[in-house]
Amino acid sequence: MTADQQPPTVTLAAIEAAHARIAGAVHETPVLTSRLLDAHTGASLFFKGEHLQRTGAFKARGASNAVLGLPEAEAIRGVATHSSGNHGAALALAAARRGIPAWIVMPENAPAVKRAAVAGYGATIVDCAPTLTAREETLAEVVAAHGAHVVHPYDDERVIAGQGTVALELLRAVPDLAVIAAPVGGGGLLAGIAVAAKALRPSIEVIGVEPAGADDAFRSFGLGELQPQTSPQTIADGLRTGLGVRNFALIQRFVDTIVTVSEEAIVDAMRLQWTRMKAVVEPSGAVPFAGVLEHGERFRGRRCAIVVSGGNVDLDRLPW
Amino acid sequence: MTADQQPPTVTLAAIEAAHARIAGAVHETPVLTSRLLDAHTGASLFFKGEHLQRTGAFKARGASNAVLGLPEAEAIRGVATHSSGNHGAALALAAARRGIPAWIVMPENAPAVKRAAVAGYGATIVDCAPTLTAREETLAEVVAAHGAHVVHPYDDERVIAGQGTVALELLRAVPDLAVIAAPVGGGGLLAGIAVAAKALRPSIEVIGVEPAGADDAFRSFGLGELQPQTSPQTIADGLRTGLGVRNFALIQRFVDTIVTVSEEAIVDAMRLQWTRMKAVVEPSGAVPFAGVLEHGERFRGRRCAIVVSGGNVDLDRLPW
Repeated sequence: MTADQQPPTVTLAAIEAAHARIAGAVHETPVLTSRLLDAHTGASLFFKGEHLQRTGAFKARGASNAVLGLPEAEAIRGVATHSSGNHGAALALAAARRGIPAWIVMPENAPAVKRAAVAGYGATIVDCAPTLTAREETLAEVVAAHGAHVVHPYDDERVIAGQGTVALELLRAVPDLAVIAAPVGGGGLLAGIAVAAKALRPSIEVIGVEPAGADDAFRSFGLGELQPQTSPQTIADGLRTGLGVRNFALIQRFVDTIVTVSEEAIVDAMRLQWTRMKAVVEPSGAVPFAGVLEHGERFRGRRCAIVVSGGNVDLDRLPW
Repeated sequence: MTADQQPPTVTLAAIEAAHARIAGAVHETPVLTSRLLDAHTGASLFFKGEHLQRTGAFKARGASNAVLGLPEAEAIRGVATHSSGNHGAALALAAARRGIPAWIVMPENAPAVKRAAVAGYGATIVDCAPTLTAREETLAEVVAAHGAHVVHPYDDERVIAGQGTVALELLRAVPDLAVIAAPVGGGGLLAGIAVAAKALRPSIEVIGVEPAGADDAFRSFGLGELQPQTSPQTIADGLRTGLGVRNFALIQRFVDTIVTVSEEAIVDAMRLQWTRMKAVVEPSGAVPFAGVLEHGERFRGRRCAIVVSGGNVDLDRLPW
């Protein structure tokens, strides 16, 4: 049996089950359109507004699916993760929804606004030094002390299935889509979307968009072998992480192509979405639209879904 | 006959006719909610999203009603106004929609983005010196040369009726509203909303919100006599103008109260709407929510519509 013949680790059925499980815990976000941006790009763009998702990012979907799917005996001991970003708040929300404790290991230098979000959902913040080693060691201590269940931010089948619910909603809301473009960091969102979209509409083209300064997915996809992320340089802070193993396997199988975008295009895309759509989109969330700006020939004249993955941005540190 | 017994110059029937006239030319904007902001304020808030209106502000409603209601013989000679802000783009859009020429007199120091918006709708920009005298003289020259019909930005019954369509949509979309809060500058939006809201739901409380640094409406309302705007000092650039004569008469009759807000509250309101609602709201558009922040006792525990009047903001000159 070759890799291609193995059953995928995440299926449409799992994504549909996730969608039923997380209904009520997360929003079905709106699909936004802009005739100005359509005119600007020559494409018909359908922006899936995950910046309007609870916690301000799509991460609420995967975390909710993981937490709500836990057996009661396991859930009761709580959940834990390490995160300096959106996954921590998403897991805190999901745990609060289920009424179980959550421990979020955060580097001491995490932005105050991120800490406030996690604390606001009632989770316990566990401080650590701002290194990956310190984060992992501190998380191991939390697990040893409380028996909490660890939910990885992306390299986890339940998380991938949760993120894939974005595509279910998109395909239901927008007929005749030709393309879906999604950002790729750890790959949870892109992998989940690709599984669902290809199962429901085999003719659709699924495009991953990645900052050129953090292009491990692009390189991995091209070489057919998982490449490490090395010293990523991009304002898209949500996409600096390396691609996950499970994520890469699904992306190889179900994604059509991965393109990279410049930092300049990301800033242009952010500004256009802020000024024309009046949408506060974070740099990572603007990356797919940056793909339309920088690779226009792939999108022009087509009906394209653009996944706006999040809107959590520090207004005191804008990139212009 | 006292003033109170005179028929109002703008009626519910005129506003309903305006709504039918401008359908298709402008958007029925969404009503947005935020459980975070409800929890923050203790009120049930329904944000009417005019920042998502065409041209990025409610002004498209009044200008479209004025232009689409012109008799053909008059319309064919075109329309004109002087504007450094949202009304110019709104009139340009309305004229383009009808296929007639528009001349927009703009001060030479108007922001490039505003000029681009006007030009983008195909209107002719006529430059002038940045003084009120120069603006009025240049507009008079345009009218003399082309016979264009002047559409005033707010002191105009057709414009007031157009802005009042905001209230028709709100009362249809949100049952059992107790309060509508709208910003007041020239008074077109507040007057139109008050006429429609009081006619359809007499029990509703209509609150005008004004920057303390540009409080001519507050003073006029309190004294019962139109007071001039003198050297306004506020970041809410759309509200620096003085209250119109027709607008004041309607506001006296149909508005319950006018409250003022500090510059600090306006900035806080903007930031909360940007970060929590992910909505790019301009300073003037944040003024009603600033009223909720600074006069909480008037809103707490009540179902309140908050009119977010616009979202046109210069990202390179944010007030923080």
